[in-house]
Amino acid sequence: MKKIYLAILIAGLIQPVGFSQFEGYKFIDLTYDFDENTIFWPTEEGFKLTVQSFGHTEKGFFYAANKFCTAEHGGTHTDAPIHFYEGRQSVDEIPLENLIGKAIIVDVTMQCAEHRDYRVVVEDFLDWEESHGEIPAGSIVLIKTGFGEFWTDRKLYMGTDERGIEAVNKLSFPGLHPHGAEWLVNERKIKAIGIDTPSIDYGKSQLFETHVILGNNNIPIFENVANLDQLPAKDFSVIALPMKIKAGSGAPTRIIALMSK
Amino acid sequence: MKKIYLAILIAGLIQPVGFSQFEGYKFIDLTYDFDENTIFWPTEEGFKLTVQSFGHTEKGFFYAANKFCTAEHGGTHTDAPIHFYEGRQSVDEIPLENLIGKAIIVDVTMQCAEHRDYRVVVEDFLDWEESHGEIPAGSIVLIKTGFGEFWTDRKLYMGTDERGIEAVNKLSFPGLHPHGAEWLVNERKIKAIGIDTPSIDYGKSQLFETHVILGNNNIPIFENVANLDQLPAKDFSVIALPMKIKAGSGAPTRIIALMSK
Repeated sequence: MKKIYLAILIAGLIQPVGFSQFEGYKFIDLTYDFDENTIFWPTEEGFKLTVQSFGHTEKGFFYAANKFCTAEHGGTHTDAPIHFYEGRQSVDEIPLENLIGKAIIVDVTMQCAEHRDYRVVVEDFLDWEESHGEIPAGSIVLIKTGFGEFWTDRKLYMGTDERGIEAVNKLSFPGLHPHGAEWLVNERKIKAIGIDTPSIDYGKSQLFETHVILGNNNIPIFENVANLDQLPAKDFSVIALPMKIKAGSGAPTRIIALMSK
Repeated sequence: MKKIYLAILIAGLIQPVGFSQFEGYKFIDLTYDFDENTIFWPTEEGFKLTVQSFGHTEKGFFYAANKFCTAEHGGTHTDAPIHFYEGRQSVDEIPLENLIGKAIIVDVTMQCAEHRDYRVVVEDFLDWEESHGEIPAGSIVLIKTGFGEFWTDRKLYMGTDERGIEAVNKLSFPGLHPHGAEWLVNERKIKAIGIDTPSIDYGKSQLFETHVILGNNNIPIFENVANLDQLPAKDFSVIALPMKIKAGSGAPTRIIALMSK
């Protein structure tokens, strides 16, 4: 029997990555489509697709191709540290190690349902830790406000469906309090953070202090993250791969979660 | 001793994904930057970034943000099956299972160095199999022509640095022969394919038969894949996450490889 256990153990250890890495896991897409309904900041034009070809060509074959224009910050996207902090990483410079790894969900849906300008505080993280243990160093922390259910209703999701600079003062949605950001960075050494709202700072923010703290510490931020209601509190991984825009302050990003079947 | 083996074995089996999935692995970025030098088809304008803000605002904080315009097909990107086959998957519809998994490299650098209009044939895959065993069903196959070393020199990389429709007839670079594509699909049940050239069809193609075969079979194609010289012939995984463009015929894509340290 001893030999059998040993054989199984060794077989488990030497499985080549290609043949075992993703077996037994399922993928969950945490990304919204980019289309004419994708939510951007009120000052941005949104995602514009132009069809270049869709149909059969003179030579007989079918051919579809498009081009598009977009702001870096809209839909499901990454804020690179440089977005709010000079001299920090641009989106192409974020190490892949910061974009991939173990993740947790901190659920503040109740708090945000009561008060749509709620800011997540240290106590919310301590509450999570009471049930699940200390947030492991190097975690990707996803904040679930429940506002994902409002997508793509701009008024419900961000507090206003108006456009332009005037609308910015009417924004209303929850975010992460600067003290919460400082604590996650300094006390729990997180490597990235995400949220199911348009911004990690709450809608009423004037100085974007949470962005500044995270940027200064080279922590990438994922915004408008989708489908957080499909994830457990822990025991899953996240892979967030932003478009590799040279010197970009952010980029459209495909984010997925990976968990045991 | 039996109990110890059993304990280790069970510990190995029940490790939660978040804490073990990526430990002991390194990531290799197979993606080129998007910037003004990124190579697009001669008929396309290329990647255009517009800086909206870069500097300190009136309120005191630093703020950087950009917008950009691009064709779906340029730089490191995915061709969705619909690109050359009506009714097949658009880029947002490609199952994540087709974009992630075990991968192999088929190296045809020698053939392409001798003849820059080389097309990869079944024999090249059989040669690979003689050394490495049968290509496993469900593989992501990456073709290494060696042309990655020419990036970003358009003349060396694609045969012409001219722009516009006239330049298309001057294209010259290697690709995959339609017979090779048919064989990979039917005999080896691959789930995706990539190449380090601007197109899976060689530069002189007029009818894009290889695209048509792969599109018809809902096989996504990755083009302008970078850094294939950093990968072994097998025993690694690929994660290719395209921007989620609704009904897109393709999209800029971040592609990475994952292998044991």
